[in-house]
Amino acid sequence: MAQQLLHPDRLFSADVTQREIAKRLYNGVKDLPIVSPHGHTDPRWFADDQCFSNATELLIQPDHYLLRMLYSQGITMEQLGFSTDGRQSAVDPKSVWRIFAAHYYLFLGTPTRMWMDYVFAEVFSLNECLTIDNADLFYEHITDALQQDEFKPRALFERFNIEVIATTESPLDDLKHHKKIKDSGWQGKVITAFRPDNVIDPEFEGFEANLKRLSELTDEPLDTFSSYLSSLFKRRAFFKEMGATSSDHGHLSARTLDLSADEKEQLYLTIRSGNFSADDADKFRAQMLTEMAVMSLDDGLVMQIHPGVHRNHNQQLFNQFGRDKGADIPIATEYVANLKPLLNKLGNNPKFRLIIFTLDETTYARELAPLAGHYPSLKLGPAWWFNDSPEGMRRFREQTTETAGFYNTVGFNDDTRAFLSIPARHDVARRMDCAFLAQLVAEHRLTESQASQIAYDLTYTLVKQAYDL
Amino acid sequence: MAQQLLHPDRLFSADVTQREIAKRLYNGVKDLPIVSPHGHTDPRWFADDQCFSNATELLIQPDHYLLRMLYSQGITMEQLGFSTDGRQSAVDPKSVWRIFAAHYYLFLGTPTRMWMDYVFAEVFSLNECLTIDNADLFYEHITDALQQDEFKPRALFERFNIEVIATTESPLDDLKHHKKIKDSGWQGKVITAFRPDNVIDPEFEGFEANLKRLSELTDEPLDTFSSYLSSLFKRRAFFKEMGATSSDHGHLSARTLDLSADEKEQLYLTIRSGNFSADDADKFRAQMLTEMAVMSLDDGLVMQIHPGVHRNHNQQLFNQFGRDKGADIPIATEYVANLKPLLNKLGNNPKFRLIIFTLDETTYARELAPLAGHYPSLKLGPAWWFNDSPEGMRRFREQTTETAGFYNTVGFNDDTRAFLSIPARHDVARRMDCAFLAQLVAEHRLTESQASQIAYDLTYTLVKQAYDL
Amino acid sequence: MAQQLLHPDRLFSADVTQREIAKRLYNGVKDLPIVSPHGHTDPRWFADDQCFSNATELLIQPDHYLLRMLYSQGITMEQLGFSTDGRQSAVDPKSVWRIFAAHYYLFLGTPTRMWMDYVFAEVFSLNECLTIDNADLFYEHITDALQQDEFKPRALFERFNIEVIATTESPLDDLKHHKKIKDSGWQGKVITAFRPDNVIDPEFEGFEANLKRLSELTDEPLDTFSSYLSSLFKRRAFFKEMGATSSDHGHLSARTLDLSADEKEQLYLTIRSGNFSADDADKFRAQMLTEMAVMSLDDGLVMQIHPGVHRNHNQQLFNQFGRDKGADIPIATEYVANLKPLLNKLGNNPKFRLIIFTLDETTYARELAPLAGHYPSLKLGPAWWFNDSPEGMRRFREQTTETAGFYNTVGFNDDTRAFLSIPARHDVARRMDCAFLAQLVAEHRLTESQASQIAYDLTYTLVKQAYDL
Repeated sequence: MAQQLLHPDRLFSADVTQREIAKRLYNGVKDLPIVSPHGHTDPRWFADDQCFSNATELLIQPDHYLLRMLYSQGITMEQLGFSTDGRQSAVDPKSVWRIFAAHYYLFLGTPTRMWMDYVFAEVFSLNECLTIDNADLFYEHITDALQQDEFKPRALFERFNIEVIATTESPLDDLKHHKKIKDSGWQGKVITAFRPDNVIDPEFEGFEANLKRLSELTDEPLDTFSSYLSSLFKRRAFFKEMGATSSDHGHLSARTLDLSADEKEQLYLTIRSGNFSADDADKFRAQMLTEMAVMSLDDGLVMQIHPGVHRNHNQQLFNQFGRDKGADIPIATEYVANLKPLLNKLGNNPKFRLIIFTLDETTYARELAPLAGHYPSLKLGPAWWFNDSPEGMRRFREQTTETAGFYNTVGFNDDTRAFLSIPARHDVARRMDCAFLAQLVAEHRLTESQASQIAYDLTYTLVKQAYDL
Repeated sequence: MAQQLLHPDRLFSADVTQREIAKRLYNGVKDLPIVSPHGHTDPRWFADDQCFSNATELLIQPDHYLLRMLYSQGITMEQLGFSTDGRQSAVDPKSVWRIFAAHYYLFLGTPTRMWMDYVFAEVFSLNECLTIDNADLFYEHITDALQQDEFKPRALFERFNIEVIATTESPLDDLKHHKKIKDSGWQGKVITAFRPDNVIDPEFEGFEANLKRLSELTDEPLDTFSSYLSSLFKRRAFFKEMGATSSDHGHLSARTLDLSADEKEQLYLTIRSGNFSADDADKFRAQMLTEMAVMSLDDGLVMQIHPGVHRNHNQQLFNQFGRDKGADIPIATEYVANLKPLLNKLGNNPKFRLIIFTLDETTYARELAPLAGHYPSLKLGPAWWFNDSPEGMRRFREQTTETAGFYNTVGFNDDTRAFLSIPARHDVARRMDCAFLAQLVAEHRLTESQASQIAYDLTYTLVKQAYDL
Repeated sequence: MAQQLLHPDRLFSADVTQREIAKRLYNGVKDLPIVSPHGHTDPRWFADDQCFSNATELLIQPDHYLLRMLYSQGITMEQLGFSTDGRQSAVDPKSVWRIFAAHYYLFLGTPTRMWMDYVFAEVFSLNECLTIDNADLFYEHITDALQQDEFKPRALFERFNIEVIATTESPLDDLKHHKKIKDSGWQGKVITAFRPDNVIDPEFEGFEANLKRLSELTDEPLDTFSSYLSSLFKRRAFFKEMGATSSDHGHLSARTLDLSADEKEQLYLTIRSGNFSADDADKFRAQMLTEMAVMSLDDGLVMQIHPGVHRNHNQQLFNQFGRDKGADIPIATEYVANLKPLLNKLGNNPKFRLIIFTLDETTYARELAPLAGHYPSLKLGPAWWFNDSPEGMRRFREQTTETAGFYNTVGFNDDTRAFLSIPARHDVARRMDCAFLAQLVAEHRLTESQASQIAYDLTYTLVKQAYDL
C-alpha cells in the first residue's frame, strides 16, 4: 500500500488557505505534553509496570467503542472472547483479532478507526491498513512488541510525553497502586480522582454494603447524615493526599437540590432504611451533588458532573456479560432548572469550580454556553464519549464559542481506559481545535497570532488551570 | 437563459480538491439502478399503464411539499384546484400551473425546487427556468408529452432504471393492482409494504369498521387478542406472497411495550369495547409494535418505524380539505426509553431487523446512532421527509457516522408519491453522499478507494441487504 | 499594528469561488438603509438629543453580553461599576474600561468582539486592537468624541443610515419621548412597539399596581375581562397612533389557549383575586396571547412572540443588582402543541401576522420551519440573542431554508439597546446571508442573479413587508 496510513495534514480543511494556517497552528501545539485530567486507565499498570499481554486483551476487549460496533453487526460476545461465567476468554485471542480485522471496514469514518490507525502507525510502526490478510502479522507484531521493555506501561507513559494523568477510583478504593507508584521513585505523575457514585447513589449495586465498608474505612457510624458526610469528607481528604484534584459524578440527570437540614436528615434516614422510592433516591443524589460542592469549598477538589446516560440499556447483554460492553445510551438532559439549586448556592463563589459535560448536544448553545458564559464557578467540559469525534468537537466549538468564548472551556479530556490511544485522542483534539481556529483566521475573525495563543491555551493552559494541575 | 438549469457538478463543494473527488465518486454510482424500498406511488399506475392526465394533476396537486409552501404564502386551496366537497378541481389546471410558476421563486434553496428542475430538464427536456412567462409553454409541453407512450408509467419506470419499487398498502387492501402487475408479464418489479396503522391504532378514523373488514378478509372472529393477531399474521402472509419484504409503522411516538399475556388480552378487550382512554390507545399501539416485531421473526418482514409527526395540525384545513395537504408537523421524539421494551425482547435476535426513521434530528447523535451502533437488529433509516434535503442529508451523516458508521444505515428512501421526481431524489442523495465522502477523503480520513466502495454500498448494497431485496 | 482591525472580506468563506460571489452579493446590499423593527434603544436619546456621557456608560454597563462574560471570569459587578444600592457607579468609569480592555481576549471568537471592533473602527476610527496598553487612549478618544455634535444620537442615527427604528414600551408608558420626537420636526423615524408583559403576566413584578395604572390610563374599571380587554385595546390604539406596527410578547413558554367566554371570565376573576396558582397564571398568559392575536385582526399590529428564557437565573445577582445583568438562560421550548390553539383560530387568516422567535434551535428544522412553511399567518424571526452570531445565523439558514424557504422569514432584527453597535450587527447579518447564498451559488443551487435578489429581499424587502413599515 503506497498510501500513507496517517497523512500529516489529516483533519485539516482541503481549502489551501485554511490548511496552511491550521498546519502552522498545529505545529505550535503538537509537541506539548499531554495533560489528562480525567480518564480510566488502570493505576496497577503504572504501579507494577508489567508487560501488557497481547493485542486482543489490550486493544479490543476493554474498548467498548470497538465491542459495540462489532456487536451491532452480529458478532457475538462469545466470538469476541467473553463468556457468561465471568469474562474469561473462551477463544483464542488471535481469532478475536482476525474478526476485528475482517470487520475493520465498519469503523471507516469513525474516531475509533482514526485512533487505531494512529496506534498501529505511531506506537507500533505498522503503516499499512489492517486487513484480514495482514491480521496475523499485526497481531504477532503487536504482541511481540508488548513483551519489550520499551512497551511497558511506564516506558509508554514517558514516550507519550504525559505530564500528568488522572485515574478514577471510588471512595472504597485503598489507592494502593497510587501509593506504590509514589513510593517507587518513578517520576511519572499518576493521580486519582474521587468518584463516589457507589456510595452516594442509593440505587447503585451494593449500596448498603458499600456504606458498611465506608463506615469501616472512616471510623464513622453513618447513623446520621452528618456522620455520613464526615466519612465522605475523610475519604476526599485521603484522595487529595494521594494527588486527587477533582471529584467526578456520573448521575442519570443533572438534578441538584438544596434541602433544609431537617429535610436532609429525614431523607438520609429514609434512604438508610432501605425502604425508599425512586424519587427519594433521585432526591438524595441531587442533594448529594450539592453536598459534594460544599465540600469542594473546603478541600478545593474541582467538581465534575457528566450526566445523561442510560447505563446498560441491553438487559440481556447486561445479565450475561455485565457492564461496560457498549450498551450505554445517552438521553435528553436538562441543565437550567436542574443545576439552579447548586448554582444559586455556590455558582458565584470564587472558591468553587464545577465542570459540566454532556452527551445532549442540544444543550450546548441553548443551556450550557449561556450558563458557563455567566456563572464564575462553571466551566464546560469538552465534547465527550460519543461526541469525542472530529464532528463532535467541531459542533462543540461552533455551538459554545459564540456565547461562552474559548476561556470558559477546559481543554481536552480523553476519558479513556484505552491507554495506547491517548496520544491519538489528544492529537485529534489538537488538530480539530487548530482546524476550527484556522477557519476563523481565514475568515478574518481572528488574527493568526490570536489563534496561536488560543490553540496553546486550549491544549495546555486551560486544562491545567481548570483542574488545578 | 444561457445558464444551464442543472449544472453537472451541483451540490459538490466549490473547493476544487473536494469537487474533483466527489465527481469521481459520483461517476461510480450515478448510473446504478434505483432501489426504492419505501414509497407511496400508486400501484394502479403500473397495473393499468394509462397516460397521466396533465402537468397540474401529476406534479402539483398530489405534492404536499408544493401545496404547503404555496399555502404558506396566502395561496388558497381553492386557487390550487381543491374544493371542500371532495377534492374535485374547480379551476382550470392551467391556472393552477400559472400560480405555481408565478410563485416558483418561493422554492429557491429548497429541495422541491431541485427536484422540479430535474424533472423539467431530465424528464421533459425543459432546460429553462420556469417563470410566469413560460408557464403556459411548460404546461403544454409537459401535458402533451404525458400523452405519449414513452411517458406512460411503465415506460418511465424503465427509463428511470428502477430495479424495484415498494408501494404501501393497508392490510385491508386487496392488492389487486399488484396482482394485475404480476399477471401482466411486465418485468417491472413493484412490490407492496404492509402498513397496518388503520387496524392497530384504536384512534385511527374508522378503526372499528376496519377491524370488521379485517375479520371478513381473514375469517377470524377477532373476539380474542389471539384471533386478532392471527388475522394480522394472515394478512402479512398475503402481503408477503405479493412481494412485500417489509412492514411500516407511523405512530405518533416510538413507544413500545412488552405486556404479559393477561395484560394484553385485557387491553385488547378494553380497546374493542370502544370505551378506552387515550392512554389505553397509546399502550395498545405500543404493544402492537412489539407484536409486529414478533411476527417479523416468523415471516421475515423487515420492520420500519417512523414516528413523531403531529398529523393534520391545521384543523380548519383538515375539516375542509382532508389529510395530506401539507399540514403535518414534526414533534420531539424519544427513542431510548420508548424502544427499550421491544429491543430488550428482540434487539439481540439475528433474525429480526428494525429500521428507525426520525424527524427529530436531535436524536441522531444522542439516541439513534448509539442505539444502532449497538443493537444487531437496529438500523437507521435515512434523512426523511422534511429532512430529505441536501442540508438534512449532510446533518444525518455528520451526526450518525461517528457512532454508527456507514454500515448501520440502509441507503436512501425516496418515500414519495411524486413518481416523476424519484430519479431526482435519488440523484440528490447520491450527490450528497459523494460530497460528504469527498470531504473525508480530502481531509485524509478515508482513501478514495474506501470512499468509492462506501458510495457504492450506500447507493446499492445496503438498501438491498436491509430490505431483503 | 499593521494588521487591519476589520478585513473587508471578513466572514466570507476562504474558498475563492465562494468569496468572490459573496463579495459581489454583499456589495449589492451593504449600503441599503437599516430597518430595525425590533429593539431596545432609549427613545429619550432621540427626543433630547443630548451627548452620551462616556465610553463605559455607553458601551459597557448597559450591555448584558459584555457583563455576563466578564462576570463569568470572576470580575465582580462592583468592579464593573454597579453597587447594590441602586446601580450608582461606585468606581471610576475609566477603571471599568481598563478591566474590559484587560479581558478583551475573552471575547475572541464571539459576536461581541466583532461588534465592538466595528464600533471602534467604523464609528470612532480606532483601527488598532484594544489592549490594556491602549485602554486609556481608547477611553479618552471615545469619551471625547461623544461630546461632539456629530456623535449625538440624532447625528449617529442619520450617519448609520437608519430608515426606521422601533423601540419597545409597556402599555403604561406615556410615550412622551416619541411625542417629543414627532413634534420636533426631526425627520428620523423612531416608532414604538407594544410590549404588554407587565400587564398580561400575572406573575410579573407589580402586576396589580400595573393594572391599577392601566385602569387610570384608559378609564376602564377592569372589573370584567371585557373591560380589561378594552383597556388593552385602547392602549394598542394609542401606541399605533404613535407609530407602532407591532406587539411583542416575551413569555416563558409559547403556550396559547382558546378558552370559552365563561372560562376566560372566570380565569380573569381568579387572577384578579390575587389568589391564583402558577398554572392559572400560565393559562392566563396563554389565553392573553390569543386575545392579543384577535386584537391584531382589528388594529393590524403584527404580533411577535419570543419565548423560552428563564429570566434572572442567578438569584443572588438578581437580589443585589436587579434584572438584565446577563443572567437570563434559554430553556427547551415547544411550539407545535403550544401554538395550536392560536393557529387553529387565526393561522389561516390573511389579516393576521405572527412572527416567532426562538432560543431553542432544535425547533428550527423540526417545528418552526414546518409551521412557517404551512401557515399563512406565521413567519420566522431571525437568529436571536444568544444565536445572533455568525454560527447562529448559519444554523438558522441551514435548518429553515429547506422547509420554509427564504420568503417565510422576516430579515434581521438587532434587538439591542447598544445603539452604537446597530450598524455592526446588521453588517454581520448581511455578510452571513451573502456567505450562505454564495455557497448555494458556488454549489450550483442558485444562480447569482437569484441570490442577488434574495440578498436584497432578506436585507430590505422582507422586513418592511413583515412589519408593515
